Amino acid sequence: QETLTGKYGEETKLIYELQDQGGELLALRYDLTVPFARYLAMNKIRRMKRYQVAKVYRRDNPATSRGRYREFYQCDFDIAGWFDPMLPDAECLKILHEVLSDLQLGEFLIRVNDRRILSGVFTLCGVPESKFITTCSTVDKLDKMPWEEVRSEMVGEKGLSPEVADGIGEYVQLHGGLDLIERLLQDPKLSQNKVAKEGLGDMKLLFDHLTLFGITGQISFDLSLARGLDYYTGVIFEAVLLQQENHPGEEALSVGSVAGGGRYDGLVGMFDPKGRKVPCVGVSIGIERIFSILEQRVKASGEKVRTTETQVLVATPQKHLLAARLKLISELWDAGIKAEMLYKKDPKLLKQLQYCEDTGIPLAAIIGEQELTDGVVKLRDVATREEVRI
Amino acid sequence: QETLTGKYGEETKLIYELQDQGGELLALRYDLTVPFARYLAMNKIRRMKRYQVAKVYRRDNPATSRGRYREFYQCDFDIAGWFDPMLPDAECLKILHEVLSDLQLGEFLIRVNDRRILSGVFTLCGVPESKFITTCSTVDKLDKMPWEEVRSEMVGEKGLSPEVADGIGEYVQLHGGLDLIERLLQDPKLSQNKVAKEGLGDMKLLFDHLTLFGITGQISFDLSLARGLDYYTGVIFEAVLLQQENHPGEEALSVGSVAGGGRYDGLVGMFDPKGRKVPCVGVSIGIERIFSILEQRVKASGEKVRTTETQVLVATPQKHLLAARLKLISELWDAGIKAEMLYKKDPKLLKQLQYCEDTGIPLAAIIGEQELTDGVVKLRDVATREEVRI
Repeated sequence: QETLTGKYGEETKLIYELQDQGGELLALRYDLTVPFARYLAMNKIRRMKRYQVAKVYRRDNPATSRGRYREFYQCDFDIAGWFDPMLPDAECLKILHEVLSDLQLGEFLIRVNDRRILSGVFTLCGVPESKFITTCSTVDKLDKMPWEEVRSEMVGEKGLSPEVADGIGEYVQLHGGLDLIERLLQDPKLSQNKVAKEGLGDMKLLFDHLTLFGITGQISFDLSLARGLDYYTGVIFEAVLLQQENHPGEEALSVGSVAGGGRYDGLVGMFDPKGRKVPCVGVSIGIERIFSILEQRVKASGEKVRTTETQVLVATPQKHLLAARLKLISELWDAGIKAEMLYKKDPKLLKQLQYCEDTGIPLAAIIGEQELTDGVVKLRDVATREEVRI
Repeated sequence: QETLTGKYGEETKLIYELQDQGGELLALRYDLTVPFARYLAMNKIRRMKRYQVAKVYRRDNPATSRGRYREFYQCDFDIAGWFDPMLPDAECLKILHEVLSDLQLGEFLIRVNDRRILSGVFTLCGVPESKFITTCSTVDKLDKMPWEEVRSEMVGEKGLSPEVADGIGEYVQLHGGLDLIERLLQDPKLSQNKVAKEGLGDMKLLFDHLTLFGITGQISFDLSLARGLDYYTGVIFEAVLLQQENHPGEEALSVGSVAGGGRYDGLVGMFDPKGRKVPCVGVSIGIERIFSILEQRVKASGEKVRTTETQVLVATPQKHLLAARLKLISELWDAGIKAEMLYKKDPKLLKQLQYCEDTGIPLAAIIGEQELTDGVVKLRDVATREEVRI
């Protein structure tokens, strides 16, 4: 428990714990970020770029229909090391953009903010520093509830004064692009705050890089993005899929977050005995979430999806030809061709062809006694029923 | 605990347990076989063929230098369903042979036996049925210790009489091919045992199939193979790597098991409320074990192995060209080319080329002011220093 403090914030309660036989308190991996930071610190690695696809665990209420499980896969990409500003950050966003585009998930939006800009806003609005992280959690709910509700949580549960909340409200409802960044850099109040100014300067640099990558069309600087986790120190981002059909004039509705990430410059230092820092930035993609969206689409479209990649079924039309089938399939396998056969000694030809139709195998390689004598194979196109002897 | 009885035998003590917050006793996955069987039963799946690469856990003493960890990956392939005898079994062995050959691990041997043959041997030698499984565990040690030691464990620890042990010894020291199978099928004592006869008949069929696959050269019928797990009911097998240089005349020494598997026809039924059986056969490959062997070989050979696949480094020879680098790398990424750049605003050309040499990147795409003006890129072969403008 001790070693998790200051890493997962309010989400610590979702971590699965294990009481091991030696009396140690262990826990199942909650994400891939904290273990990556620990790995870097323990092995004294000062620079690294890696991706990882692995399971993580949440002691949460599962909602399997929406792709929310207690055990699920994440896919992470991170860049660790001391570099010039915003170059690894821009690469993470480029990769996230590329992955979401290639998966053809439809319209998506990557919302970007910076913890330092939020800190600056909180400071100038008069939020006490002890309430920064909890205020972040509340701001983060702006994508799910209207400002009025978020404001009343701030004033009610979190104990901020109405004036402080209204001050925050003026900023966190803003979103835009380079124009908004420029405007805030000129903002008489916010630009006085050193930390916020640094964050805004880096945000401008990031948008300059992303412009060169040609991807700013799907990226929005959004001051309401806060992200729940404690460990972020700079840029933060989140990708949401947008509803496919939206009525003209209306703003596109988000159907949920499928990826997120940000900069965490302090995390490696927390694990290093001498506190040596290694700055990091990374992105986590929620594969299961994406799968459940893709599955729903396929289901809705009524399309039949093949679950195997088998190219050819090795078949025989007469009895006592198992040996010929085994010999041919072995040759096909050795040649790298994806082949299957029925696990039956003497299957009927009709059954074999029916299996091809049921499972979508496009070809059947048929060897009967005649073919064996002639030293040929009859290749049949299952759909057209055309046959060639080869 | 209850649900694990009769599945892992003596290895049950190696299972990591978890006390969850709801008071349930949970455990970390010990292998991929039992969870696969449970999946089939819970989802009423009567036939399936699947591979899986995933982590498993053992509460064992780790020996990291030999690739033995408490958390490690296994790679499994299984075929479930009612089929004609030995067809899925032969396919599992073919796949195992193919994997080990393609990995170029050097000489290997796949030892094959059948639980039914062992049962027959035990019966006719007078081992009480209650001692079958524990006798199996002792026989299984024959690959690590000489017969004399195994015999004394049988007589001492396991309480068998010396005559019974000697009877077992006559059989379990045998290994060979089709000839041995034929001989045992004629064995006046063993062929009287119905179960053993069935096992020998199937072993003959298996070797016939493997002959058609052309892989019997690396497969040995070995009566000393027993395998520790409770759940096997028929064919069992294990792959061992052989020492690379062995002196002429000496038998090749095993450097350890890298894969194993067998038939488990009763496991799915144990999870089914109505006890409905689904016969299965499968193979588990110890990837970590294989990695540690490959790593040791690479280390011994002094060969340098590249840890990235980057094809080209995007580089600039002058200052103030970051934008040009970002634009070019983005184009290369979009074209599917594996490209990297240094995360520095104005890196020295020498540093960039040095980075290529250190990490084995074969090409540098250089854009200076001249190239920008001319609309070209200078492509440099890092090893030969040859340059072309394209």
